[in-house]
Amino acid sequence: MKLKVKFLKWHAGIPVAMLHHKTAEKLGVRIQGLISIKTLSRNPKELSTIIDTINEPYVRENEILVSWEIKNEMSLERGQKVDINIALPPKSLDYIKKKLNDIRLSKEEISEIVRDISKNSLSESEIALFVAAIYDQEFNFKETISMIEAMVKYGTKFKITGKYVVDKHSIGGVAGNRTTPLVVSICSAAGLTFPKTSSRAITSAAGTADVVELIANVDFKPKELKKIIKKVGAFMVWGGSLDIVPVDSKIIKVEKDLKIDPKSNLIASIMSKKFAVGSKYILIDIPYGSGAKVSRKKAEKLKNEFLKIGKHFHKKLECVLTDGSQPIGNGVGPALELIDIIKILDPKQEGPEDLEKKSLFLSGQIFEMTGKSKKGHGIKLAKEILYSGKAFEQFKKIIKAQGGSLERLNNHKAKFSKDLFSGKSGKIANIDNPKMNSLARAAGCPADKFSGVYLYHHVGERVKKGEKILTVHSETPSRLKQAVTFYNHEKPIIVK
Amino acid sequence: MKLKVKFLKWHAGIPVAMLHHKTAEKLGVRIQGLISIKTLSRNPKELSTIIDTINEPYVRENEILVSWEIKNEMSLERGQKVDINIALPPKSLDYIKKKLNDIRLSKEEISEIVRDISKNSLSESEIALFVAAIYDQEFNFKETISMIEAMVKYGTKFKITGKYVVDKHSIGGVAGNRTTPLVVSICSAAGLTFPKTSSRAITSAAGTADVVELIANVDFKPKELKKIIKKVGAFMVWGGSLDIVPVDSKIIKVEKDLKIDPKSNLIASIMSKKFAVGSKYILIDIPYGSGAKVSRKKAEKLKNEFLKIGKHFHKKLECVLTDGSQPIGNGVGPALELIDIIKILDPKQEGPEDLEKKSLFLSGQIFEMTGKSKKGHGIKLAKEILYSGKAFEQFKKIIKAQGGSLERLNNHKAKFSKDLFSGKSGKIANIDNPKMNSLARAAGCPADKFSGVYLYHHVGERVKKGEKILTVHSETPSRLKQAVTFYNHEKPIIVK
Repeated sequence: MKLKVKFLKWHAGIPVAMLHHKTAEKLGVRIQGLISIKTLSRNPKELSTIIDTINEPYVRENEILVSWEIKNEMSLERGQKVDINIALPPKSLDYIKKKLNDIRLSKEEISEIVRDISKNSLSESEIALFVAAIYDQEFNFKETISMIEAMVKYGTKFKITGKYVVDKHSIGGVAGNRTTPLVVSICSAAGLTFPKTSSRAITSAAGTADVVELIANVDFKPKELKKIIKKVGAFMVWGGSLDIVPVDSKIIKVEKDLKIDPKSNLIASIMSKKFAVGSKYILIDIPYGSGAKVSRKKAEKLKNEFLKIGKHFHKKLECVLTDGSQPIGNGVGPALELIDIIKILDPKQEGPEDLEKKSLFLSGQIFEMTGKSKKGHGIKLAKEILYSGKAFEQFKKIIKAQGGSLERLNNHKAKFSKDLFSGKSGKIANIDNPKMNSLARAAGCPADKFSGVYLYHHVGERVKKGEKILTVHSETPSRLKQAVTFYNHEKPIIVK
Repeated sequence: MKLKVKFLKWHAGIPVAMLHHKTAEKLGVRIQGLISIKTLSRNPKELSTIIDTINEPYVRENEILVSWEIKNEMSLERGQKVDINIALPPKSLDYIKKKLNDIRLSKEEISEIVRDISKNSLSESEIALFVAAIYDQEFNFKETISMIEAMVKYGTKFKITGKYVVDKHSIGGVAGNRTTPLVVSICSAAGLTFPKTSSRAITSAAGTADVVELIANVDFKPKELKKIIKKVGAFMVWGGSLDIVPVDSKIIKVEKDLKIDPKSNLIASIMSKKFAVGSKYILIDIPYGSGAKVSRKKAEKLKNEFLKIGKHFHKKLECVLTDGSQPIGNGVGPALELIDIIKILDPKQEGPEDLEKKSLFLSGQIFEMTGKSKKGHGIKLAKEILYSGKAFEQFKKIIKAQGGSLERLNNHKAKFSKDLFSGKSGKIANIDNPKMNSLARAAGCPADKFSGVYLYHHVGERVKKGEKILTVHSETPSRLKQAVTFYNHEKPIIVK
């Protein structure tokens, strides 16, 4: 059935369409039923969507009203004719149920699930079932390989070419720890190509994209990104808008809504994006320890799995295990982390030592992997580039190329803040990462970019009773109060 | 924030609302974020909903456009003012994740999950996660008790009073097997009060509600049902529209979308509805065997669980284990099953013997439970009522009280049909229940009520090569073809 496309600036967050109830009847589709929309061009685009019904004058019998999300994903024009058909229930739902019954999936089954997610044939509830199934029985090596291949296959072609295309990734879980902008600046200042796509915060206080967004755009089309790479050799953008691996984005959206971070899909999610971009050298940072995402033992296991995947796909891949038992850097929250970073980059200022040290270490590793420096000399080269101000210059170039400027930060601060003090004298025994993230989120992170926590001490340091231990920043008094209540109740910092 | 309610005959299948994008901004809610809608009356109704955004003139800044589902659930009037607030993310999501991690839930945790489902604070994806979690780790006795109590607590008050309020329930899985209208007619003809709410088909070819709907209304308000009970002592209606246990309906909707039938919630789902109606005597039919939902062993286990639950809630509850290894009756599909039933009820006609025998047995059990007859004499009384035509009279009275008439059936038939024949001579060794259901569904059941399968033989009977074995009925040639292809491919009937 051919229908005319109509929009009403209707944003639903997911693809949805409305039909006149008579049209729905004619098609034989019920409310919340699935239809496929197909363009009439030579290379037709196709997308499945659930439907609502409504009457004239909002939608006429020969019209289909689509949500902004469909318009955007299919690049539709007002009045354009599209072909509408009833969509069959996806067969891949059976495979999801198979997985829920703890049965391993074949390459073909995983490919079909991924294809149906890419075509939007699986609803959010069905993807939620998939998320639950792989949460319950984690992917094994073969399944992970199949998942990566399928997600890359149904992804966008976006390859950055070049001999030295590098990438780094941290599995996360550590508050602060914003090494990416530092590593990207140091490495690309040395001539390495560094196309870095990052996520926004899922369960943490900030993602690299949330941080960079404060002073630059992070939302670009592939064409524009290739220009930026040509100009400055690196970018730091939001992977979600670029959407190189749309299936991964859809799964992550559901995981985010459900506040689930399934380890099962961790490797596939990371690696599919790296392979889709064409990275040749990949460094994976696995922070471990109490309060990190993984224990030392699990980190070793994960490292071996990553190395196996790298080998399978013929990539130079290395993993470093780093101390993830406490926050790294002083700021936790988009703006506060960015301030730390600029202090480290700017040779005239001084930033948190731990964050600087870790960033130099990671950059040094990449220099040694790529042969930019000899084994054992990577950190030295990284230091030269950072301390000479070359990295800062490169950082500013990248920000400028992304349409931004450091001045956007402009000494802005959150409207409200409160200092918190140590209840006794002693040594700081523990700073709990998940609780620090929750504290920053209670204060308004990641939505309120200037909110968060600023830490004055790290584990092992001595504090006196009544000494300032941290400051909470927030945009509203109620959020500030919420954060302080959380702090008093959860005690994220232990002095002994 | 106070907003004016607006409708546009918009049916979305689930509660959704649209706000002007500026209103959403002012509230601080994002697209797909959760808000609560509260009426301003003295006993305010409250419901959570996700939101979309749209602009003028469809929605003004002081308006909220709600889907039909919200209008219906909250009984809203056009232009009515409601109070809108941002809704906090439900805490019960944490409990669902706990269950997903195989941790038993407390009474309070289950109650909070059920409360959030009833308030619509959990999205369909979140309910899908719950469904997956209880699929993965089935409820134990304590959890089942908590689930029943919570679902009844957050249900509608709708009690049928009387000394002899009886109910029966089959756990399903057997094709045909439409005993309910027979048992209800026989028992209520004998003076028992039989308020029967039934489901529509989830994974089968027909539910009792689909069958009765052919000749009567099945969709009533509580007040109307009480009148019907007063008049004729029984009804057979759709439980979904009555929605005595709305949380159960919402969970079932998600299970239906996901085509999952989790055993975990089976007992709670059944019992909560029986208790909400106020049934005092409950008979549970558990068909077992190859091709049924459960094996003999599992049936015994289930029986013990049901009995324990009955004892806990001080109800007279009995379970019968019946042969579920092949279809019961000849018709599979709403109309074909109804025709079987009328043939059995009408003393002038003859219906399928197996269905008659089972219905007499179940009715007899209920007579003995309630003391209407002595132990061992139940079937005799049931036969008297059936063969004398009293049950048929009572059936017609119920149908009339539900605004219907047998004449609605009016010899109507599906437009297309095809006979299928035995490929060889021999004894029928097996008729597979799930495949028979799928065959009827392929033919158009349950949506096309006259479609389905008519069986001429049962297991153990001898057939000759070329003898007619069944007829497939369908409303379109394509569905008929689909069903025949399914039959040839899946071979639901085995002759040896």
